[in-house]
Amino acid sequence: MTIYKAPLDDMRFALYNVLGAEKVLAGLEGGGDHNRELIDAVLDEAARFNEQVLAPLNASGDEEGCHYDKATASVTTPKGFKEAYRQYADGGWAGLTAHEKFGGQGLPHVLGALTKEMIDSANIAWGIYPLLSQGATDALEHHGDAWQQDTFLKPLVEGRWTGTMCLTEPQAGSDLGLLKTRAEPNGDGSYKVSGTKIFISAGDHDFAENIVHLVLARLPDAPAGSRGISMLVVPKFRVNKDGSLGERNKVAAGAIEHKMGIRGSATCVMNFDDAEGWLIGPAHKGLMAMFTMMNAARLAVGIQGLAISERALQNSLNYARERLQMRALSGPVNPDKPADPLTAHPDVRRMLLTQRAFVEGGRVLAAYAALQSDIETRGTDESERKKAGELLSFLIPIAKGLLTEAAQECTKEALQIFGGHGYIAEHGMEQFVRDARIITLYEGTTQIQALDLLGRKIMQLQGAGLKHFLGEISDFCHAHASDEALALFIGPLAVAAKGWGDLTQDVAKRAAANPEELGAAAVDYLYYSGYVTLAYFWARSVLAASVAGVPADVRQSKRDTASFYFARILPRMHMHKAAIDAGVATLPEVI
Amino acid sequence: MTIYKAPLDDMRFALYNVLGAEKVLAGLEGGGDHNRELIDAVLDEAARFNEQVLAPLNASGDEEGCHYDKATASVTTPKGFKEAYRQYADGGWAGLTAHEKFGGQGLPHVLGALTKEMIDSANIAWGIYPLLSQGATDALEHHGDAWQQDTFLKPLVEGRWTGTMCLTEPQAGSDLGLLKTRAEPNGDGSYKVSGTKIFISAGDHDFAENIVHLVLARLPDAPAGSRGISMLVVPKFRVNKDGSLGERNKVAAGAIEHKMGIRGSATCVMNFDDAEGWLIGPAHKGLMAMFTMMNAARLAVGIQGLAISERALQNSLNYARERLQMRALSGPVNPDKPADPLTAHPDVRRMLLTQRAFVEGGRVLAAYAALQSDIETRGTDESERKKAGELLSFLIPIAKGLLTEAAQECTKEALQIFGGHGYIAEHGMEQFVRDARIITLYEGTTQIQALDLLGRKIMQLQGAGLKHFLGEISDFCHAHASDEALALFIGPLAVAAKGWGDLTQDVAKRAAANPEELGAAAVDYLYYSGYVTLAYFWARSVLAASVAGVPADVRQSKRDTASFYFARILPRMHMHKAAIDAGVATLPEVI
Repeated sequence: MTIYKAPLDDMRFALYNVLGAEKVLAGLEGGGDHNRELIDAVLDEAARFNEQVLAPLNASGDEEGCHYDKATASVTTPKGFKEAYRQYADGGWAGLTAHEKFGGQGLPHVLGALTKEMIDSANIAWGIYPLLSQGATDALEHHGDAWQQDTFLKPLVEGRWTGTMCLTEPQAGSDLGLLKTRAEPNGDGSYKVSGTKIFISAGDHDFAENIVHLVLARLPDAPAGSRGISMLVVPKFRVNKDGSLGERNKVAAGAIEHKMGIRGSATCVMNFDDAEGWLIGPAHKGLMAMFTMMNAARLAVGIQGLAISERALQNSLNYARERLQMRALSGPVNPDKPADPLTAHPDVRRMLLTQRAFVEGGRVLAAYAALQSDIETRGTDESERKKAGELLSFLIPIAKGLLTEAAQECTKEALQIFGGHGYIAEHGMEQFVRDARIITLYEGTTQIQALDLLGRKIMQLQGAGLKHFLGEISDFCHAHASDEALALFIGPLAVAAKGWGDLTQDVAKRAAANPEELGAAAVDYLYYSGYVTLAYFWARSVLAASVAGVPADVRQSKRDTASFYFARILPRMHMHKAAIDAGVATLPEVI
Repeated sequence: MTIYKAPLDDMRFALYNVLGAEKVLAGLEGGGDHNRELIDAVLDEAARFNEQVLAPLNASGDEEGCHYDKATASVTTPKGFKEAYRQYADGGWAGLTAHEKFGGQGLPHVLGALTKEMIDSANIAWGIYPLLSQGATDALEHHGDAWQQDTFLKPLVEGRWTGTMCLTEPQAGSDLGLLKTRAEPNGDGSYKVSGTKIFISAGDHDFAENIVHLVLARLPDAPAGSRGISMLVVPKFRVNKDGSLGERNKVAAGAIEHKMGIRGSATCVMNFDDAEGWLIGPAHKGLMAMFTMMNAARLAVGIQGLAISERALQNSLNYARERLQMRALSGPVNPDKPADPLTAHPDVRRMLLTQRAFVEGGRVLAAYAALQSDIETRGTDESERKKAGELLSFLIPIAKGLLTEAAQECTKEALQIFGGHGYIAEHGMEQFVRDARIITLYEGTTQIQALDLLGRKIMQLQGAGLKHFLGEISDFCHAHASDEALALFIGPLAVAAKGWGDLTQDVAKRAAANPEELGAAAVDYLYYSGYVTLAYFWARSVLAASVAGVPADVRQSKRDTASFYFARILPRMHMHKAAIDAGVATLPEVI
């Protein structure tokens, strides 16, 4: 049985001490109400719900999994999941960050990010259901007609209904341009949607009375490829004019997948058979709406990585302190016990610090990104909003790519600390590894994140986000060049940031000559970017911890972890640079 | 459903072309018979058995798992496992490398290593049963009395019985000094063994009529800690003087573990309750006998890593060639198809080449190590035997550590190539990840391998093995300094090898001043050593492929993969050096 305690102190440290979120939020439209008292109260309440309601269902949900009944084409979720969702909806969590005009609470996205982390630490499989609703909510907020918002968005915000994103088809995974699902106009504004979608998270379940499917499909006159994709809303049950439910629509789950992990999450094959739907946004412009929901979802998946790593860390740290095995190499630290704790062994500390460096550094990164989302949507200055949007869109593939890949390493190390016991189901560590394995795959693989970062955010958009971010790092380095607390960090950070800029120019030049160089560099570039990004947030964390009023143990822990990060993790950037420098010539056809 | 085809061509390339094994074996005692014709015939037969009998049981064995019946305290293995074992025993595979005087075939260990690779590619869970028998065979060959060899060893070699290694106890994992199982003399030469052992692979099953447990326990007068451990043989059924089976001994499986993977392998809790046993070797010297079986088992576990990576590679390469998704960045390579194959994307090739570099390089490493075992046991020259033994004992932690950790990376990348499909059980890729996760844990974790390498093989034994190995690399570099085929490789290899020597001296110096530095450096030192070791074997592979008679595609593939390895994998050594240089100061107590 694994433990989970919401890391409220570190969340507050990231939010208030490192990012100064209180002041930032106060400056936003409607931000006057979003003071520390309110945010702290929400965090406390989220901790209570997630520790007490969701966390205990994590192992049982994995063991039981979802059930599919062929006769009714319906999915039953594991014991307790449905009731937990009812509490979640009743608590108003579904509409936490949704706009007030749709019945939401309009609270900051940065608060949404922290509560999302708690949900996914407590129960990542369960957390996938509201994650999909969030995606649908975002798409409908931004791209839905007024009647669609009235009809579909409000019940989503209330948590009465849930949503899905129906993108993937058997032949169309990363390559959505290949999708075949068709949508034919009925002449009354509605469409008949037909096709098969796979890997549809929350495609069917027993949480809610209706499910709002957002479906990518082609209209009869659609251009080929990704420029001919439209988005439609297709509810599980038709909706009458008064909002009450009508008859069953012609969409149903055809099967659920048997997966390595997140077994409490229903991953469905969805069959659309002339199902009634309505176009969201303009015809053939579905990818734009898709990216609206995808971008928020990608940051959320990065947060899943941080969340599962946090819980793995808590459990492995606990075990390492309690498990007695072997003596310290320099002599017993526990002479009155039969052996020393695992923490007496330096490599165990390496594995623990690796997790902590990614988790706490990643938490600042995720919160920073979410805060840009708040500034983008509620900033009072147009240029500030634009800048925040550019920073956010630049940081999303980094956060998604790095934090999901780091979660592979963190959960692996956490299991390793348990030795053979880590391999046994009852200790729960292997579930973290299995659950974490999905996150480098869905919402765009690491390879897709890397191409998004380098191909789109850097090359196509002239790297606006990178320029802002490097400028910010440079300002930080200059401002604190003679700050004693940062003496160990500013130099290497400045070098790393300069290297990032140089590397970007070099890759851009080579990719202009041969586009294959972009593909050969992208994943290593993503890692390089991620490591420098975390170095910046670790330096900021040390600064934040150095001021008066911060408890001595927090100050020491932040310093220690940052020192570890700069000495033992950040040097990985050289390996990635070497790989990028080697270029596509070292990636020949595999014979 | 996954594919598996024994990589016979590459096995022969490693054996004959790279390592010149034909000539080496011919020079050993009894080696005249071990000619290429014989070895090829055995390899072909092994391929047939493993492809046709074991490989098809891999997925079904995982799905079904083992069953434990509480009433009879007995384990039933998955459907087909028992029958496969019968074929294995009938084929003489159990005694392949055992000495002729015990009924074995006395074939070379290097042949045993290659057939073991096939078994573990085909079905790693099944392969654990004969692996444990092999360990027991080794221990009894070297440390058993004549009557013990007659009574217990011969049926093991015939495959009528199987063996176990009963080491771990709940409080004693990596730290065997903490074990509590007791053995009290009965006065007639036998002992009463009592205690509980956990994680006992093949502890019970339905393969064989008897099971030979080799058990670590304490005699009443045992000194505390690891110097007070004895080894005893405890059969499941007592054995009469004529070799027939007597009554059931007081040892039984109390439960089986529910594990992340290798679910077809029975991992048992074994209860010894005044079970009859006999001392193997001298009292209190059990760890010596334990290391005899452990060392061979560690190399075998390294081979498991290579084996599972080989199968993951075969499947991901196959998928990458067939799956059409997106266009190459420089324009369609498949203009008449809806999309290009995954292999058109450079990062997919990176993931494939990573696997190939570890698999094919690791195969040469494993075969080289096994060949040292042949020279050690059958060499005609005393100093040659001693040198081979030192090389082997030095290379075992490197092979075990590197190849098991590389298997984590290889199976992860192989799954990644499948995208979301990799996460679905039916594709079989996630089983490889789950199965592979055990191998960095059992037979000594990576941390234990690292301490064995740096603490024991380097520091305590004055690094004899390292000196031999660095000498060999240096000789190779000098001999081929002006060899055109090796122009890209000799320089970096010589630098890396020199760096290895320097690093070793530096770490040794620091560890002498502070033993904690050894623990802080060990795992990074293991990786560093592993990467340089593989660089050497890749350079030798390029050389071997450059001579006349080698097919052009093999020559190109070896060159390409070596270039990839030197450009994109070997640079990782710098990161490990940076971590080592940072020292224990960067691994403080975790607050």
